[in-house]
Amino acid sequence: MATEFKYPRRVQFADTDLAGIVHFSTMFRYLEEAEHAMWRAAGLTIAERGGDLGWPRLGAALEFRNPLRFEEEFEVWVRIGQLKTRTIEYEFTIVRGQTVVAVGTMTSVCVRKQPNGTMKAIEIPAEVADQLEALF
Amino acid sequence: MATEFKYPRRVQFADTDLAGIVHFSTMFRYLEEAEHAMWRAAGLTIAERGGDLGWPRLGAALEFRNPLRFEEEFEVWVRIGQLKTRTIEYEFTIVRGQTVVAVGTMTSVCVRKQPNGTMKAIEIPAEVADQLEALF
Amino acid sequence: MATEFKYPRRVQFADTDLAGIVHFSTMFRYLEEAEHAMWRAAGLTIAERGGDLGWPRLGAALEFRNPLRFEEEFEVWVRIGQLKTRTIEYEFTIVRGQTVVAVGTMTSVCVRKQPNGTMKAIEIPAEVADQLEALF
Amino acid sequence: MATEFKYPRRVQFADTDLAGIVHFSTMFRYLEEAEHAMWRAAGLTIAERGGDLGWPRLGAALEFRNPLRFEEEFEVWVRIGQLKTRTIEYEFTIVRGQTVVAVGTMTSVCVRKQPNGTMKAIEIPAEVADQLEALF
Repeated sequence: MATEFKYPRRVQFADTDLAGIVHFSTMFRYLEEAEHAMWRAAGLTIAERGGDLGWPRLGAALEFRNPLRFEEEFEVWVRIGQLKTRTIEYEFTIVRGQTVVAVGTMTSVCVRKQPNGTMKAIEIPAEVADQLEALF
Repeated sequence: MATEFKYPRRVQFADTDLAGIVHFSTMFRYLEEAEHAMWRAAGLTIAERGGDLGWPRLGAALEFRNPLRFEEEFEVWVRIGQLKTRTIEYEFTIVRGQTVVAVGTMTSVCVRKQPNGTMKAIEIPAEVADQLEALF
Repeated sequence: MATEFKYPRRVQFADTDLAGIVHFSTMFRYLEEAEHAMWRAAGLTIAERGGDLGWPRLGAALEFRNPLRFEEEFEVWVRIGQLKTRTIEYEFTIVRGQTVVAVGTMTSVCVRKQPNGTMKAIEIPAEVADQLEALF
Repeated sequence: MATEFKYPRRVQFADTDLAGIVHFSTMFRYLEEAEHAMWRAAGLTIAERGGDLGWPRLGAALEFRNPLRFEEEFEVWVRIGQLKTRTIEYEFTIVRGQTVVAVGTMTSVCVRKQPNGTMKAIEIPAEVADQLEALF
């Protein structure tokens, strides 16, 4: 029984900046790609076409330990740190071979989009929680 | 009476890639920023909150003459090449001082979003055409 | 013997914009990803670490036929249209199942980076031309 | 005497995602734009052409309080939280009118690029520290 979902990726040219390494904001995109791949692995999608649920971020943080460079292959490891009534806290490690590239967290809140365009925090649907927990 | 709308911009760090110059895909974003600034100058917005009109691209093309580098200041010059019943063709020149960085075109079509999520081409509303033409 | 290199990809969340479809500038990034995957398949890299060759764009153009949406799977088909002394012209088709999403071209020029930071067009090295041609 | 540097910005179309709001990774780009504008205001640049100093991130974190939408105008407020021997910790607040959009921090380390492409942490040059401190 796995405790982490692993998402493999390769660094693309447009992910880099003039310092020759992956731009730090791109690392946050890698986290999100891994999160969404994990949801797909659980039979879910974070953004159902025509649906009214959303999962905006409450927070995101990364510590950067080592750079990533063009064409390098790496993995994003995702773990669900806490699954609460309304929020999910993910824990991430980005690794290239034996090297830890970055570690961090992201927290999302389940919302229902209101007719006026605003968002209201709601309880995470039971089937979402169940399917995510069944992955591990 | 101006014949071009001029949009000033500075190159940001995340606009660059490992070659030390602005990534070519970012140049297309500069075109769009200039287009939307021109719409604002005409008292319009390309994406009204809650509106059902959209302006997807039919095509975009750029020829690259000279690179742009971090922190350089430049301008995007926009001209409406053709304003047809359903489409707008824009002509662009990106310049840094006396140097031409790139020249290109973009064509957008006016659409109405359908309840099922698809888009249907429609005639450009008269007030949009009028306000864009009044700019020049 | 293949006549096209095919690069599979999935739409990521950050590839989309508020219109709910892939941003047109992101489509150009897809072309580049496919180009670089083709180079890797030929045993090459577009950006050798510490190397002094570069491949800046002379031009890029896309016609957009159909939108791409979050999590959709698609392919970028790459063909070398013309391999000249100093330039490579690529031809691209982006397809989702039987649907053509976009068609376009990109042209790159082989340059050597000069000590002062500028770039000088040079002849494409014979081994690069040979390995690219051997792919097809 | 100001205690914060304020960087004004407008949300661009490509900054948004299918949820209709600014993508969270773009918020980190806003922080960096503000940081670099602050360096320019101090007569400095984070990336001197041909220079061998670099300022990679050790960490970055944001809490998101309210969304930002297309064409909204906002400010990024930057403060230097700690200026140590080798590192700078910035504190950020993103505000739209009276509304706090996000608060966060970033920490960068001063490095010298080595001939082999790696980076070595070094002491922040005195003139950099002096000019940054003179801003406030």
